[in-house]
Amino acid sequence: MSAPLPSQKALVPFVSVDNMMRLVHHIGLETVLRELADMIEADFRRWECFDKTARVASHSREGVIELMPTSDGEIYGFKYVNGHPKNMAQGLQTVTAFGLLAEVSTGYPVLLAEMTMLTALRTAATSAMAARHLAPMGAKTMAMIGNGAQAEFQALAMKAVLGIEHVRLYDIDPNATAKAARNLSGSGLTVTSCTTAQTAIEGAEIITTCTADKQYATILTDNMVGSGVHINAIGGDCPGKTELHRDILLRADTFVEYPPQTRVEGEIQQMDPDYPVTELWKVATGEAQGRSSADQITLFDSVGFAIEDFSALRYVRDRLNGTNFHQELDIIADPDDPRDLFGMLQRAR
Amino acid sequence: MSAPLPSQKALVPFVSVDNMMRLVHHIGLETVLRELADMIEADFRRWECFDKTARVASHSREGVIELMPTSDGEIYGFKYVNGHPKNMAQGLQTVTAFGLLAEVSTGYPVLLAEMTMLTALRTAATSAMAARHLAPMGAKTMAMIGNGAQAEFQALAMKAVLGIEHVRLYDIDPNATAKAARNLSGSGLTVTSCTTAQTAIEGAEIITTCTADKQYATILTDNMVGSGVHINAIGGDCPGKTELHRDILLRADTFVEYPPQTRVEGEIQQMDPDYPVTELWKVATGEAQGRSSADQITLFDSVGFAIEDFSALRYVRDRLNGTNFHQELDIIADPDDPRDLFGMLQRAR
Repeated sequence: MSAPLPSQKALVPFVSVDNMMRLVHHIGLETVLRELADMIEADFRRWECFDKTARVASHSREGVIELMPTSDGEIYGFKYVNGHPKNMAQGLQTVTAFGLLAEVSTGYPVLLAEMTMLTALRTAATSAMAARHLAPMGAKTMAMIGNGAQAEFQALAMKAVLGIEHVRLYDIDPNATAKAARNLSGSGLTVTSCTTAQTAIEGAEIITTCTADKQYATILTDNMVGSGVHINAIGGDCPGKTELHRDILLRADTFVEYPPQTRVEGEIQQMDPDYPVTELWKVATGEAQGRSSADQITLFDSVGFAIEDFSALRYVRDRLNGTNFHQELDIIADPDDPRDLFGMLQRAR
Repeated sequence: MSAPLPSQKALVPFVSVDNMMRLVHHIGLETVLRELADMIEADFRRWECFDKTARVASHSREGVIELMPTSDGEIYGFKYVNGHPKNMAQGLQTVTAFGLLAEVSTGYPVLLAEMTMLTALRTAATSAMAARHLAPMGAKTMAMIGNGAQAEFQALAMKAVLGIEHVRLYDIDPNATAKAARNLSGSGLTVTSCTTAQTAIEGAEIITTCTADKQYATILTDNMVGSGVHINAIGGDCPGKTELHRDILLRADTFVEYPPQTRVEGEIQQMDPDYPVTELWKVATGEAQGRSSADQITLFDSVGFAIEDFSALRYVRDRLNGTNFHQELDIIADPDDPRDLFGMLQRAR
């Protein structure tokens, strides 16, 4: 006797890397970035519904593996993500990820998806969502310091969400800048490749820093940053890794995702534990002010938070409907009689 | 230009429910249980190598979803597992699970596997491993109180590892007992179906309790338990859920997996926080004594620990070699140039 076919609940839709890319092109990359920014903002507006825990990290000499769970009471989600700075030397990704959604009421998974690509998209969409509240009105130029895997996504999200027209690139490695410039040609953005960070930020209303070295670095010094700019700091995202000189922080108003996490992982790890910050979700709800004047320096000290992954996974799940960009994974043993797991095994013999 | 094929590292072997069952039958169920017991014991012997964290639980009115991570410094593993007592009424599993192994040095996943079936196997193998140290010499008869999804696995593991010959079944639901008796016919065990717990434990040297109600229950009372028996208590495994009267605990010597977890989730949640227990891993290494006399009552207060899942996943990974009982999942985005994630996306258009 052969095994009965698993029930529908036992089959979990899986979105591979290949299918994630197909889905993105099917919808259109800029549309994805815009819709993701909206979805993340909508979830930030209901921030208080979420079960928020700090990520669970397993540290080793070479890097870190983290689980980032959250739940809105109806859907549970988590992301598996690693950070291994030395991977690049072996031709491997520094950060890879996948994620899962499950029904809170039954605990049954409802989506498994690659999240290396999706994390790049949600990080850029989160930056653009924050910039919508924090960048100077009518900003047209951004500087992109650090031209690694996240760079082009950042530029396109700022274009799609804010209408940025020019991007000024700089990386300590000219090959990275050349790669980003090549990838952005034909995107509709005017791209300027620069040979110093100082040149890159000339005339930029938005300065995005996204460098990868795990150290206390000073990508921007105080005298480089003029009044009125918005700094979108992505790369300072774990203990011992920052990008900005603390004097810049003292002149800026700092906006963060989840203070308990950002105080450990973000730029503000350089500051006192009670250094004043504004939570971005309160800006989204209108409870707190975003940019308040033309000469204010705003800083989004971004480290990435579980709710952004949750929004991204829900977005994928919604947009998957009616497409064939997924496989069905037989991952849940679901015998007809739930107490008869052994009988199910026997019948499969 | 089409997307380049993902590199081998980007493809993660996935063991579906169907393939897990094929693998078990390919090896032989009793062999799996024996080898799993040995693998778990070997990992218990190197207990101090492991990164041990309490599980990360997300509680809701209907149940709990947990992530159970651990690492031995070389391999990282975690299990996703839910517990939803009311699922059974909807024809769903109370507990479903899947798990993952990854390389600590790169953070790249190396195995994804269903773990509903595998958890049933590892729980039974862990019980048998503990009984090897704690049950009376030459035990031939076990009582199985609670005849749900775990019952037959328990009986077969005690047969495979200890040479148990008779099993005496009891459940408040006679249909569950009939199901277990039917499943165990032809297993080589003599099966006796009983109508009371009292009858079931007559002559049993090993008493396994594995009931599912989430409450403080008293499956066994003090006067039912004679000297010299080994009690294998599986069902008391979360806060508010116990099976034994505390007077039994006072007469028994209690062995546990990981005290910080068992004091919250196990039978000993009924006792003071400093109630004396022996850690099973110390019995495995010889640092502590298992059964010390013929009339001692031993109690394995089992709640399930991440290292057991880790051992089980490594076992599956080892035994998968040279078989075709897996699929390759394209779950890791792995562009040729790790900084060129965007280029990979563009080329997939």
